[in-house]
Amino acid sequence: MFENSRESRTDLSEYGEFGLIDHLTGNFGITKEHTLKGIGDDAAVLDFKDEKVVVTTDLLVEGVHFDLSYMPLKHLGYKAVMVNLSDVFAMNAIPRQITVSIAVSNRFPVEALEEFYAGIELAAKLYKIDVVGGDTSSSTSGMMISVTALGAVKEEDVVYRSGAKPNDLLVVTGDLGAAYMGLQILEREKQVFNVNPNSQPDLDPYAYLIERQLKPEARQDIPPLFKALDLKPTSMIDISDGLSSETLHLCKNSKTGVNLYEEKIPLDPSVISVCEEFQLDSTTIALSGGEDYELLFTVDQGDFEKIKANPNFTVIGHMTEEAEGMHLVTRANQKIPLIARGWNAMKKED
Amino acid sequence: MFENSRESRTDLSEYGEFGLIDHLTGNFGITKEHTLKGIGDDAAVLDFKDEKVVVTTDLLVEGVHFDLSYMPLKHLGYKAVMVNLSDVFAMNAIPRQITVSIAVSNRFPVEALEEFYAGIELAAKLYKIDVVGGDTSSSTSGMMISVTALGAVKEEDVVYRSGAKPNDLLVVTGDLGAAYMGLQILEREKQVFNVNPNSQPDLDPYAYLIERQLKPEARQDIPPLFKALDLKPTSMIDISDGLSSETLHLCKNSKTGVNLYEEKIPLDPSVISVCEEFQLDSTTIALSGGEDYELLFTVDQGDFEKIKANPNFTVIGHMTEEAEGMHLVTRANQKIPLIARGWNAMKKED
Repeated sequence: MFENSRESRTDLSEYGEFGLIDHLTGNFGITKEHTLKGIGDDAAVLDFKDEKVVVTTDLLVEGVHFDLSYMPLKHLGYKAVMVNLSDVFAMNAIPRQITVSIAVSNRFPVEALEEFYAGIELAAKLYKIDVVGGDTSSSTSGMMISVTALGAVKEEDVVYRSGAKPNDLLVVTGDLGAAYMGLQILEREKQVFNVNPNSQPDLDPYAYLIERQLKPEARQDIPPLFKALDLKPTSMIDISDGLSSETLHLCKNSKTGVNLYEEKIPLDPSVISVCEEFQLDSTTIALSGGEDYELLFTVDQGDFEKIKANPNFTVIGHMTEEAEGMHLVTRANQKIPLIARGWNAMKKED
Repeated sequence: MFENSRESRTDLSEYGEFGLIDHLTGNFGITKEHTLKGIGDDAAVLDFKDEKVVVTTDLLVEGVHFDLSYMPLKHLGYKAVMVNLSDVFAMNAIPRQITVSIAVSNRFPVEALEEFYAGIELAAKLYKIDVVGGDTSSSTSGMMISVTALGAVKEEDVVYRSGAKPNDLLVVTGDLGAAYMGLQILEREKQVFNVNPNSQPDLDPYAYLIERQLKPEARQDIPPLFKALDLKPTSMIDISDGLSSETLHLCKNSKTGVNLYEEKIPLDPSVISVCEEFQLDSTTIALSGGEDYELLFTVDQGDFEKIKANPNFTVIGHMTEEAEGMHLVTRANQKIPLIARGWNAMKKED
């Protein structure tokens, strides 16, 4: 993944308020086609031509959303961008710009913020977006990150959560549950480290899970793939809180029910084996783990031919009439109510 | 100003994560002309038609930017919006939408957040903007607010910080220093209260100063006034950090010098009298106090006729060649270097 950490330590106070922003964002260029003015004025000026603008924002709070004892700051910067871009892709839009604001206590040296912004910069480069603004502030304790992403989409291409119809197929990209199990691995290693700081864990078997937790990728390949397939989903959402919660959002917004088939949920083999190791039910993890940043969408049954052979997509169920309710169909062919148990809820209850 | 505080107290945990957002933002409507989709999907969808998009964002951190012991939450919500709208007006643009994210510890009851959002809602109504998104999170301590504002402007109307030329007139709206002196009054009353909680201060003589601190208004009247006067400033910035700091920004970005005349700086009589009471120099306060949210701009000398009789505007100086440097011309007709001493710096040094 990333190389990390530097030796030197420069106090934040060595830069003035404006000096620090200039220092951290000075090498962020802009693409003149979509961004007329980036950082350095009261506001950025953007050109969306004849496209509509999508905007989304997310907060990441230390101690709530991340733990710096195992989250390197460069990864954190990268992930803070992904969380937002995933929402842009979930509208079937293309991200164009982000703003990044952070509040940090002065226990963070300048080098730490440089690492954080290196992650932002890498994400911006790989996802072809401009960093056009932001704010930095001291905080009385801990670190808080606020990212806002703007994207562009033609009005006829926008996909909302609300367009699913009964009999539409429910489809998901990639596989689920890996990011949550990566978090369990990291939490376990933290406990081990607290007991024995000299332990040298072998994390190789868990590389995929840890990467899904620390360096998730938003599905920038999917909106162009839909274009190439001449496919417009009827509804779409990204999976941040867990498959069950997001499925219920689509149902609620579209006024439909759903049958979701347990046996169809795509799981990486390492998720299955690590769930066994932790004595956790892999279906529960896939339904409620969250942080997958995959896309969940519905398509008309007539579009099945366009997706059936594509390895990016797994059909996991179908929408029903609202009155039929929202159900998980188990491997034993039992229908049980689908309930929302996002990772927040899991944390509280477990 | 606002009525404030309620008796009841509902714990944040009584609402789920989504329930809380719905509860707080449920009555925010949208203007269909500029906002196709507001709160309730992965992202909002906005229509800027043939106009360019300006975007700006600001953080407000408890203990750094505000003190809840004298800042009512409804005012705080209102001010968080103003801080951002002021940046939009400084681009000569019209604000259209905002997103509002807050992180709060669970010492805040739901009623406190309702007060905060009531201030947001009032600002949105009075400034004709839509609240189109945001995020709420718990925090391990204190409150943090992140607002992003989007505005619209025709490309030919955008005013940057960088367009001033030598001999352009330097002009400011309104009067300066009042918000800073309002803060001094509030800080003094807090000290008095700490010593004697039963004291009943008479704040009437300070009403203007306190209102400028607690309920600032961004200058939404100015961009339309420029239109009506057929006037386009050559450069513009809003005054958040103080007149000296913002003047230096215009000079630096425009590659000019400046002569700023002390005797021309517009001061409210109450600023002068309270500066005497506190034994502070009113010029220093106007130059470095900040939080005025007035607009500072430059115009070609040929446009003087358009502004000279307008009570909104005060000509306070003129730009010079860069090599002449940046100076304050005192009442004694001495030229002294203009230095940036924003309120952050003042706080540290005083």
